[in-house]
Parts: sequence; structure tokens; C-alpha cells
Amino acid sequence: MFENRRFLLIRRPVGTPVPADFALESSRAASPTAGKILVRNHVASLDPAQRGWMDDAPSYMPAIPLGAPVRATTVGVVAASAHPDYREGDWVVGLGALEDYSLITPNSFTRKVDVGGTASPSLYLSAFGAVGMTAYFGLIDAANPSAGETLLVSGAAGAVGSIVGQIGKIIGCRVIGIAGGADKCSRLTRDYGFDVAIDYKGKDSEVLATEIGAALPDGADILFENVGGTVFDAELMNIAPGARIVLCGLISEYNAARKVGARNLWQVLVRRATLKGFLVADYADRFSEGAQQMAEWISQGRLRIDEDEQDGLENAYAAFMRLFSGANTGKLVLRIA
Amino acid sequence: MFENRRFLLIRRPVGTPVPADFALESSRAASPTAGKILVRNHVASLDPAQRGWMDDAPSYMPAIPLGAPVRATTVGVVAASAHPDYREGDWVVGLGALEDYSLITPNSFTRKVDVGGTASPSLYLSAFGAVGMTAYFGLIDAANPSAGETLLVSGAAGAVGSIVGQIGKIIGCRVIGIAGGADKCSRLTRDYGFDVAIDYKGKDSEVLATEIGAALPDGADILFENVGGTVFDAELMNIAPGARIVLCGLISEYNAARKVGARNLWQVLVRRATLKGFLVADYADRFSEGAQQMAEWISQGRLRIDEDEQDGLENAYAAFMRLFSGANTGKLVLRIA
Repeated sequence: MFENRRFLLIRRPVGTPVPADFALESSRAASPTAGKILVRNHVASLDPAQRGWMDDAPSYMPAIPLGAPVRATTVGVVAASAHPDYREGDWVVGLGALEDYSLITPNSFTRKVDVGGTASPSLYLSAFGAVGMTAYFGLIDAANPSAGETLLVSGAAGAVGSIVGQIGKIIGCRVIGIAGGADKCSRLTRDYGFDVAIDYKGKDSEVLATEIGAALPDGADILFENVGGTVFDAELMNIAPGARIVLCGLISEYNAARKVGARNLWQVLVRRATLKGFLVADYADRFSEGAQQMAEWISQGRLRIDEDEQDGLENAYAAFMRLFSGANTGKLVLRIA
Repeated sequence: MFENRRFLLIRRPVGTPVPADFALESSRAASPTAGKILVRNHVASLDPAQRGWMDDAPSYMPAIPLGAPVRATTVGVVAASAHPDYREGDWVVGLGALEDYSLITPNSFTRKVDVGGTASPSLYLSAFGAVGMTAYFGLIDAANPSAGETLLVSGAAGAVGSIVGQIGKIIGCRVIGIAGGADKCSRLTRDYGFDVAIDYKGKDSEVLATEIGAALPDGADILFENVGGTVFDAELMNIAPGARIVLCGLISEYNAARKVGARNLWQVLVRRATLKGFLVADYADRFSEGAQQMAEWISQGRLRIDEDEQDGLENAYAAFMRLFSGANTGKLVLRIA
């Protein structure tokens, strides 16, 4: 069978992952046994959630076993099939790993996709993938925004945040985004149509809270949270009574050996806010509805999807770390083939 | 008019309040002008919420002005009335202050009450007051428990927590309480019927989380949170998928100059939990429904209400601090007359 390079987790990271937590090894891809397919991965998704899967802690998915390749959503082509619904050459998206070939037992995460024309493989990792579906269902379903409401988004220049903000504008919200650095902030207002961009870099929670307050004198009706820590603390000081908070991610905390925590949670109490933990996997049976709406907005020119494509399994570690350094400028994907 | 001793806030506390933040002064009670009543306070409620009102920070109520007496719910007798609905001698509960006489403009917080027989004045501060109504609506309405569910309560030996646990048992929940010290823990199982009591004293968050996990292998369906900080961190590691968290108080954080924060908030995400900020004031129009149910349970011997009565305005500071030292053994009230 085929040579299969695999990016393995060999040690559980403590705090920020280091290169020695991983190893790139080569072996032979196994042939699929009955009910399985072998997928030649073309592009893989790099997401903050993967950092959580590396820890051995209670979660919605089992931890990645030590010695196994780093779990990832991938888009690829069926190289060999022992499953009646899949044929060699089919394009599929599924839960594979950072490796040349993934042996997959098709399940609810697996589906055949149309690639070609304007539909690049990576679009199934961004607009039509977990990122796009997180933004769509996290905002539309979990927060249920109305025109005229104010929407505050953290990690606003990130893959999810940039889409959340744009959908907020499509719905008619006033949208305030928080991002790190002048470049990202100018992308928010220039590329994604945010009403206000606020740079959190170099500001403590109190200073940032004051700045958010100036842009949001009546507080945020909806807070879409991707970041956590001091940014979340500052936002919590600026929520409107009855605010809905969608807790989508806490990227600033994932690598922290000592987490900052949410120190202004008392504002959730005094503002009678509701905070909901959101996992896109719960919406798997509605992905086609979401993807259809995203495709329509893209074709109408109302939604811009940026991707940050990094190249090669040998660069997997450096590529993954772009999520935490804030270097990525759009949905981060790793090209494998 | 009458001599009126008043327990004034003269400086905003930083962290734990100190005696110099307050002053006991004496003046003459003013006569009520049109629409007002003068109430001779008999008992006053001492609650963690008062600590929040001492800070000049965004909240559901204005901060207590410096130089004003510490705001408190009180039960007393109308000493003079310039309001058509109130007569001298009427017993009333209302939002007054830690002072002999409070000048009150009757509003939605004010109502006439029946005192006598088994209905002591202080019962309107405990079972029929904010404490009882917080426990009742916080559990019944905000968490909506069903028989067979597991309920985890922090601050379980406190005024609210002890009632929450008992209502949970009446509904048919399995109830686990967290409290500080062996005495409080034995009260939980002996006096209040909790299934399991866990002592948090001297344990870090990880150790406490393990102990909770042993009592709750499938996680808590409902978490009724009164404490925050490391206790909340430990609880968050033990919530069931889809858990409902009622955020009722964060007493461990109120005096903290440097708050611990909720460092395990990521569990709200991975468990798709919902966290709701709860304020009893939102249920003011349903208090009679709640009080009626509480009175019925008390008369049936199914609900035990403990009070910790401290005596005298001159002891207001020491009495208030019992809330934070954990010394109080039931609803803390201050006898004024």
C-alpha cells in the first residue's frame, strides 16, 4: 500500500505545545477492512479545538491517544473502499487526522462533497465546514439575533469571528469586533464590514472595558465569545441586561498552565445574562441547511471567506501554532497533497 | 421626632470590609412627606448582595451612596404615615436600611405582612423573603428540576443553599451539598436531608473535583451556585452534558481584591451547559405564590428554616462579617428593635 506520513501526538502538552510533543513518522497505509474507506487527505483543518483533544480531560470527544496522529477534519479522495456507499475517486470530508492517508469508518461526520468550479476542497473546512457552521448556528440558533441588536464578537478577525460578524451585519445588528493588532482591526472594518473594531493588544482588562464601553454605551445584547481570559473579563463589564452569551471558544486559555479564568462572572448575575456552551457537532443534522445559506451569501457577494493555507505535513507544528500566536489571517488549513 | 441610629457606609471597601468603612451615627428621624412612610425597623436582613451594593460598579441597583446607611430589607412597624395605603401600626417589609427608622416610598418592594402566631417578623426575611424566594424560584423556575435528576448545591449550609437542597429533595432529586467544615456538613445530611455532604475546607480545586466526582459519577444535571472561585472550578469538572447552572451568588469572590475567576469555564462549552444569572427581584410579582408554597411545606414539616439572629445596630459590622467567615448557621438577621 501507500506510504503514509503521520503527524503523531507522542506526549501530552503542558501549556503551550512544543515540537517535542509531536513526531512525524512514516509507515504503510493499511487496506480498508469491511465497512471502512481509505482517504487520501488533500487538506486538513487546524482548529483550536484540537488543543483540547490533546489533553486527557473530560470533554465531548475522547482525548487523542498518545502515539496516534493528531485528529483533524480532512477533505480528500477515496483511495480504496470497502464500504458500499463509497467508491474510489469520491471526494469526502470526514474526521481523519494529520496524515497522508486516513482509514475512516464512515459515520455522521463523513459525507461526500462536490469539488470543482468555485467549490475548492478547503471550502468544506471553512464556509461549509465546522468553522462556517459554528458561526452560522452559533449566532443564528444559539443567540437568535434580531435587527437593531448589538453584537460583540471576540477573536473577530479569526475564522469563526469574521463570519459571525458578517452574518450579524446581514441580519441588521450593530457589530463590534475585538481583535489583536492594527492590521486585524483594519481588516474587520474594511473586509468584513464591522461597525467598530477594538484592538485588545497591550491593554489590561480595565482599560479594554472602558474602550468597549465607549463603543457600546448600552452594553452588548449578544456576546459571541471565542477568546476568554482578560478579553472576556472586559466584555463582561459591557453586557446589556438579559444579554445572551454564546461560549464558543476560549482560545486564550487553552495553552495556559494557569488559566486567567472569568473573573467578572458576577456581571452575568447582575445583568441576568445567559451563557450557553456551544458545540457545532450538535448541529450535524442541519449542516446542509447551513451550508446552503452560506453558499447563497457567498454567491451574492455578502460574505467573504478568508483562508490561511499552510503547506505540508512537515510544517504541521508551525502551522498549528499560528492559531495561538494570532498569525493566521482566516481559516487555517494545512495542505497535505 | 424619634432618635435614629444609622449604620452608615462612609468609604467604599477594598476587598474585605473593615470597621473604618462604616460609622454608627445618631440623628433625628425625619417626618414622612406626602407619599412616604416612616418605618420603625425591628429586624434587618444581612445578605451577601449588600457587599456588591457597597461597590461603585455596574449592577442591578445603584451603589449605596457614601454617607448613606447600608441598604437592607427590613421588617418593621409603620411609625408615621403620609401614604393613603399605610397606617401607623401596620407591619411592613420593605427596602430600608440598617437604621432604627427608615423613610420609605412604598414601591414594588414594599408590602404589608401578617405578624403573629407562627409568623415571626424575621420569617419575612427568610422563608418568605428574598432568601426563600431565591431558593424557590432559582431552583423551580430557573433550573426546572425533575425527579431523579442530580442537584449539586454550593454554599449548601447557607440560608439559600439549605432551602434549595430541601426543595430538591421534595421534588425527588438526588442532592449533593458542598459546605465548609464538618459541622456544616453534618447539618446538611442530618437537618436538611441532603444525600451527600462534601467539605471543601482545606482542599484545592483538583482534590475537591475528585471528591465530587466520586459522589457524582455521571455529573450534576443541575448546579446551584452560591460560592464561585475554587469551589465552582471543582464543580464545573463534574457537570453532566446539558447541565443547567443557576448562578445565584459568588460569595467567595465578593471581597477578593484579586478574584479567582471561573477557570474551568471550558467545561460549560464541552458539556453544552447553560449558565443563567439569577436575581430574585425579577420574580417580585410571584412572591405570594412562592411564599404560599413555602408556608405549606413548613407547616407539613418538610422544610426547615434556620435563622441566625444577631443583636443590635452597634453589632452590625461584626454581624455582617459572619456571612463571609462562614460563621452564620442559617439566615442571618440583625435585630434592631
